Amino acid sequence: MQIIRLDISYDGTAYSGFQIQANARTIQGELERALAVIYRQKVRLVGAGRTDAGVHARGQVAHYNAPFNVPVERIPLALNALLPADIVVTGALPASPGFHARYSAKKKIYSYTLDRAPFPQVMRHRYSLHCPIPLDLEAMRAAAALLEGRHDFRAFQASGSAVRDTLRTLYRVELKELPAEELLIMIFEGSGFLYKMVRLLTGSLLRVGEGKIKPEELAAALTGCRPDAAGPTAPPQGLCLEQVIY
Amino acid sequence: MQIIRLDISYDGTAYSGFQIQANARTIQGELERALAVIYRQKVRLVGAGRTDAGVHARGQVAHYNAPFNVPVERIPLALNALLPADIVVTGALPASPGFHARYSAKKKIYSYTLDRAPFPQVMRHRYSLHCPIPLDLEAMRAAAALLEGRHDFRAFQASGSAVRDTLRTLYRVELKELPAEELLIMIFEGSGFLYKMVRLLTGSLLRVGEGKIKPEELAAALTGCRPDAAGPTAPPQGLCLEQVIY
Repeated sequence: MQIIRLDISYDGTAYSGFQIQANARTIQGELERALAVIYRQKVRLVGAGRTDAGVHARGQVAHYNAPFNVPVERIPLALNALLPADIVVTGALPASPGFHARYSAKKKIYSYTLDRAPFPQVMRHRYSLHCPIPLDLEAMRAAAALLEGRHDFRAFQASGSAVRDTLRTLYRVELKELPAEELLIMIFEGSGFLYKMVRLLTGSLLRVGEGKIKPEELAAALTGCRPDAAGPTAPPQGLCLEQVIY
Repeated sequence: MQIIRLDISYDGTAYSGFQIQANARTIQGELERALAVIYRQKVRLVGAGRTDAGVHARGQVAHYNAPFNVPVERIPLALNALLPADIVVTGALPASPGFHARYSAKKKIYSYTLDRAPFPQVMRHRYSLHCPIPLDLEAMRAAAALLEGRHDFRAFQASGSAVRDTLRTLYRVELKELPAEELLIMIFEGSGFLYKMVRLLTGSLLRVGEGKIKPEELAAALTGCRPDAAGPTAPPQGLCLEQVIY
């Protein structure tokens, strides 16, 4: 049985997240419906990251066990013809035996986009958080540097999460200014992310940027001393899963 | 009575164009509804360009006669609080007596965006035409140069249009490649545009790019020799009114 790896991009605005749910439109649900048409049977898809409602992806990865072989180079076009316009399969490849979209992933890269224009840029409003207030980027970069590394990110997961091992490595937290586009993009590259971790990191960095907490106070959330220093959770529309690295 | 000039941007996807219509959502309709709340009476808005259904704007301009004075610097925020998220007022200024958003306009700049990625870029699909096929940009640029200048653009207006004077000046037809973003943006700067003229020019240039007609054949549409060389009409979602120059 052939394992197929899919590369997927989507505008998550209209969806209740990646993961399939009863009575809700989900990315996985739309993809499995299209796969069922191609393979004439139910095909279970496994995604690398279960993005939340309203979160986007340019580089989501998923895999499935193909019930029979079809020419892989035709799979993206065949799926895209069956999918709504806000989900686009950008690649399909036969994967090595044992490949698992989630468990084989080594790193993930997320971006969070802030619209820095005085008034919201209307063609960005689905894909960014409008944040026109002054931000202390130097303080945000200092905090970002303190967040990088291997830490217990327990304070940076949504309450109610049942994950036990909350040790994660953040390889990179970068703030990219695009002055011509009036955007500020935060890049988060990590070994893995806890539930809502990127949005909690973003909300925390914004509080640092507003001068409401100091970089060292935020860092104290990593040692368990100041769990309250983490958050709030930034809204979903600025978040995008950019890449999964295997 | 004070004349107020508004600068307006919008994502036209959900609208039946700028101009007010019964039983249809329009940009003008939404703006007039918001103005009626602020001024507690009907206020008639005049737009510089009546963009079609699905067409966007980053730099639409409109004016209205204010029934009474309110601090102009507060008008954008007040209107934006009443408008849906896909219409954003980016500026309000008191205009000189006699200012008319349409008749005072000297030039307009439109852009038409082509998505050149192999598969549609999902975060661009509302704002571009996906066009992954090879295009002869040299031929398109030669045709663009032939279109520039003062010409009778009769062949480049939608049939059924009642405009008599079809002489217009195209100051600039520029093709901008953005390789990193996999976009090709066509810029049209003109004294004014006939009904659907930019979309007809775009469709014509694409036919040149595909090698289906030669630049000189397209130019012959300007002299009345080959009216059939113009068109087809490119779809609306790639079009954006960028700027109105007074």
